[in-house]
Amino acid sequence: MTQPNSPPSTPLLDKVNLPRDLKAIDDKDLPQLAGELRAEMIDAVSRTGGHLGAGLGVVELTIAIHKVFDTPHDRLIFDVGHQCYPHKILTGRRDRIRTLRQENGLSGFTRRAESEYDPFGAAHSSTSISAGLGMAVASELQGVKRNVISVIGDGAMSAGMAYEALNNAGALDARLIVILNDNDMSIAPPTGAMSAYLARLASGRTYMGFRELGKKLTAYLGKSIDRAITRAVEHARGYVTGGTLFEEMGFYHIGPIDGHSFEHLLPVLRNVRDNAHGPVLIHVVTQKGKGYAPAEAAADKYHGVNTFDVITGAQAKAKPNAPSYTAVFAETLVQEANADERIVAVTAAMPSGTGLDTFALAHPTRIFDVGIAEQHAVTFAAGLASEGLKPFAALYSTFLQRGYDQVVHDVAIQGLPVRFPIDRAGFVGADGPTHAGSFDTTYLAALPGFVVMAAADEAELKHMVRTAAAYDEGPISFRYPRGEGVGIDMPARGEILEIGRGRIVKEGTKVALLSFGTRLADCLLAAEDLDASGLSTTVADARFAKPLDHDLIRRLAREHEVLITIEEGSVGGFGSHVLQFLALEGLLDSGLKVRPMVLPDIWMEQSKQEAMYAQAGLDRAGIVSTVFRALGQKRLGRDAAS
Amino acid sequence: MTQPNSPPSTPLLDKVNLPRDLKAIDDKDLPQLAGELRAEMIDAVSRTGGHLGAGLGVVELTIAIHKVFDTPHDRLIFDVGHQCYPHKILTGRRDRIRTLRQENGLSGFTRRAESEYDPFGAAHSSTSISAGLGMAVASELQGVKRNVISVIGDGAMSAGMAYEALNNAGALDARLIVILNDNDMSIAPPTGAMSAYLARLASGRTYMGFRELGKKLTAYLGKSIDRAITRAVEHARGYVTGGTLFEEMGFYHIGPIDGHSFEHLLPVLRNVRDNAHGPVLIHVVTQKGKGYAPAEAAADKYHGVNTFDVITGAQAKAKPNAPSYTAVFAETLVQEANADERIVAVTAAMPSGTGLDTFALAHPTRIFDVGIAEQHAVTFAAGLASEGLKPFAALYSTFLQRGYDQVVHDVAIQGLPVRFPIDRAGFVGADGPTHAGSFDTTYLAALPGFVVMAAADEAELKHMVRTAAAYDEGPISFRYPRGEGVGIDMPARGEILEIGRGRIVKEGTKVALLSFGTRLADCLLAAEDLDASGLSTTVADARFAKPLDHDLIRRLAREHEVLITIEEGSVGGFGSHVLQFLALEGLLDSGLKVRPMVLPDIWMEQSKQEAMYAQAGLDRAGIVSTVFRALGQKRLGRDAAS
Repeated sequence: MTQPNSPPSTPLLDKVNLPRDLKAIDDKDLPQLAGELRAEMIDAVSRTGGHLGAGLGVVELTIAIHKVFDTPHDRLIFDVGHQCYPHKILTGRRDRIRTLRQENGLSGFTRRAESEYDPFGAAHSSTSISAGLGMAVASELQGVKRNVISVIGDGAMSAGMAYEALNNAGALDARLIVILNDNDMSIAPPTGAMSAYLARLASGRTYMGFRELGKKLTAYLGKSIDRAITRAVEHARGYVTGGTLFEEMGFYHIGPIDGHSFEHLLPVLRNVRDNAHGPVLIHVVTQKGKGYAPAEAAADKYHGVNTFDVITGAQAKAKPNAPSYTAVFAETLVQEANADERIVAVTAAMPSGTGLDTFALAHPTRIFDVGIAEQHAVTFAAGLASEGLKPFAALYSTFLQRGYDQVVHDVAIQGLPVRFPIDRAGFVGADGPTHAGSFDTTYLAALPGFVVMAAADEAELKHMVRTAAAYDEGPISFRYPRGEGVGIDMPARGEILEIGRGRIVKEGTKVALLSFGTRLADCLLAAEDLDASGLSTTVADARFAKPLDHDLIRRLAREHEVLITIEEGSVGGFGSHVLQFLALEGLLDSGLKVRPMVLPDIWMEQSKQEAMYAQAGLDRAGIVSTVFRALGQKRLGRDAAS
Repeated sequence: MTQPNSPPSTPLLDKVNLPRDLKAIDDKDLPQLAGELRAEMIDAVSRTGGHLGAGLGVVELTIAIHKVFDTPHDRLIFDVGHQCYPHKILTGRRDRIRTLRQENGLSGFTRRAESEYDPFGAAHSSTSISAGLGMAVASELQGVKRNVISVIGDGAMSAGMAYEALNNAGALDARLIVILNDNDMSIAPPTGAMSAYLARLASGRTYMGFRELGKKLTAYLGKSIDRAITRAVEHARGYVTGGTLFEEMGFYHIGPIDGHSFEHLLPVLRNVRDNAHGPVLIHVVTQKGKGYAPAEAAADKYHGVNTFDVITGAQAKAKPNAPSYTAVFAETLVQEANADERIVAVTAAMPSGTGLDTFALAHPTRIFDVGIAEQHAVTFAAGLASEGLKPFAALYSTFLQRGYDQVVHDVAIQGLPVRFPIDRAGFVGADGPTHAGSFDTTYLAALPGFVVMAAADEAELKHMVRTAAAYDEGPISFRYPRGEGVGIDMPARGEILEIGRGRIVKEGTKVALLSFGTRLADCLLAAEDLDASGLSTTVADARFAKPLDHDLIRRLAREHEVLITIEEGSVGGFGSHVLQFLALEGLLDSGLKVRPMVLPDIWMEQSKQEAMYAQAGLDRAGIVSTVFRALGQKRLGRDAAS
């Protein structure tokens, strides 16, 4: 339905394949280049979908950095990477830019394996200062002179990791350039005192004049500045504010400057390049979605988009077959919170992604967006729980990794009843390996006293939200995948599940399929095939990886010849707990053929979720062939071909 | 050899069993009480060993808080908890204070299960502001008026988690009292720009007079202050500095004030108690080890001590039978670094605990102490590795949990060759469950491409340091326990081990014991017992949990009737990987009796390390009885009795 438009005309951009080609373009022509780059990116993303607003905001900044610095010898690190599409176009990847986030296409993030212009991969937030500091220190130790530039957004500055890195950089006095890209947005508007502080800095109340900027730069450069530099400074039409917070942290602070003006950007970057001798932070103000009217007008600045019509900005709408798991979680939590005022919700800068924006509308005083701050989010929730509230700390599986020590130390050891809804558990599709939710069952089920659940479908998710709300004995988690449910009938209200009790969904006699989470539907399909082959198959939904349903597992083991466990997670998780139990009970001693199916031991590349199930062998065909292999038979599907 | 002294005379302290008993003691008598409390704590720790310096530094502060606030209704949270011994003495636990850190004794940290006066447990650093904010918000939501006081050290302020919490608290405008206990020490002198900033604040250059303090408090209280308060303010003889950094973060900042003067502490705390209406940070300057000359004179301020002689301060010295694993690691790393200038070391505020103080002496330009900042430590190391250096990021197992997402996202996905020496892996004895190194194998071996090793003895550790130094293909870790080695002969230099290759230590025919890490010695002892019972036993050292030695495991499985795996780690780790392999290979189908021995699924309490092995069943007797049970025989040791 979209993309009726032909690619834009880009005569100047056509001359730029690599950053060195920028040297031949005059400063005064850069605004035209920026316009063409913007048009090219809009066209590309209109065809692929992806992250649009962030890249639009840094078109001028990206050009200016590559114009002034000597990449890839100089190291340019983009934090998160949502904003890297213009960078990819300028660094030899324009010919593949319309493969963004597709199978075998360009990554939606920076990636070391993809280009020497991506010296450090990104995807999770707030890593760039740490990585950049490591590079700067390494270069100094090795006697290599190079610039290291970390570009980080204001939203990412709420993460403690960024502070840890600033704190260390300020003390080491390393030659590191941090560009703070301040657009007053991360994915949602940022929260926290730092955000307010940056807004004050950028508010103009404290702008300084040219004279002050000159004086500051003179002090910074550590020597008298010559006329050329003075002119450049004046050209900058920039300004320097107090910046005391960053200066107290040991950084020289320049800005805020206008991130869409080459007249501001180029002289400041050139001065820093030529004269920096310690850590410097350049505060650049940009506008997310800049230069594309539909993005500028949208509340989320077209942060992440489907394919869309370039002229109107109208995005393609997928026709959902069923509500998304995220929506089911959010609506159910609102429902339970209506009935229990002790329920509160915590998000780490993802109110929309987690669905908690819905909760915020219904219960505005009972939701806490703590910023990109998963460590704090978990322990803050532990504090809420210690006072008798029922906190739901809703995080993506991959981001919960950021709060793992807090889960162990502040929640699990103390047995506090924090509820962990774990979204995006399992395959995530286009976001690729950095966002895959592969490890949560492994790293949570190892913890004594933890209750670990996975939802087989959206009705099960509804039960698990209610179960978690009702469970006050200790920590409890429930994982659910990205995307839509299976379309099952939904109960008016979730049931309270018995802790540690699974269910048998289909009875058979020879083969048992024991699913933890979303693979249940494929197990049922596989059972059809197996039954049709004369292999009478039982299908069970474990519901709990911890505590395990010992009775159910004993029965499956004793009454079947083959036992398959299956989960959308790594080794060490559900299947490993089942094997451990079977082994210690002696249930493996008499020839049960047990086959635990888990994620393959590779970093799986971006693809469609459905395709990834097949690649991983965790689909109907994979289950069937695993059973046949276990029985020493070769039949059906991929197995026959292998 | 120590404790020739009788307990101190404590007439005033004898009247205080609970904080409410402080109400009857006049302010002017509090210095005497402080002296008695100090003497009592010194005497207790002289008998038990433990953390001394931190507690000595907060004697007056602890008394003042309990005198002014209404604990336990008001919530008092000590960060880390090293400093909580005076608090324990004042809160009903004096009769057990000489059981500190002993089996069945008081915890060396605060602990919810131990006392209502410990509203939030601690042990890891920098959690107190997050927890306190959760409590403050919960109290407001529930309409309960209470004070929440988080006491946090300056060293703990280098952790990003503390910053995340400040950032959130400043924005929420919650009624939270943070007391920054600034002694210019954590365990080692703190590092980082924040530390330098605090030193500037406390340096006296910017002290303000009474008038300014009065003006600040007036503004803070939001109303005119009456004469009493003015007098109190004047009594404080306090001073207020700029404190701009904390004020930019949304906190009202008071201080620095003298943390050993009741005349300073009491009026400020009373004012804050009676009038605070938003987040406030009180900057208190104390002296670690205060009031005990040997502690004051020591470089580490008697941070952690053995039993000692109160008069002389001389600590009992254990007679080591073998070098500690920590020392072997450190000396070997120096040796390897002498041969390879690309080797560098990273510590997160633990130069002494990790042994890297030795490295710092030998290679002062090649070690980086990043502060209490494990997230940054890991990604900083990844940055170093990306430029071709060979970073060893040496962390305790329990603290590596703080950097887990960085291990996944910045190191493992990118395949960067960061080396992770993992100290204190397994049981840690007196520090209890918060410091146990239980989960590292589980959460690391799940990661594709990771090499995961464990040292069976100190010579193996030496090999693994060299192996890690030589391995450039990707991330690699090696775990080793707290304490002394087994006394084995040490090679002049470590060998480079073949990746993914274990070794058979003793050949047998019926039973196979496959050890990962330190349990090898007990396996050899158990094999003696088993051989003597006619069960010919093979003992193997896996060395690698990842990649597994498939040939070795196949051989052990095929040639033995019983296969035991054993490790000092949780389910999901080495044993689970072995089971997964065995299952998928079909090696479990023909009746092999496999028994994976792992840590029990409980939070094991503090005890002696040796006692914990027995409690966990991971010792010689436990191995033997596991084998006998697998064979359906009841004989020997605990099994006969059960």
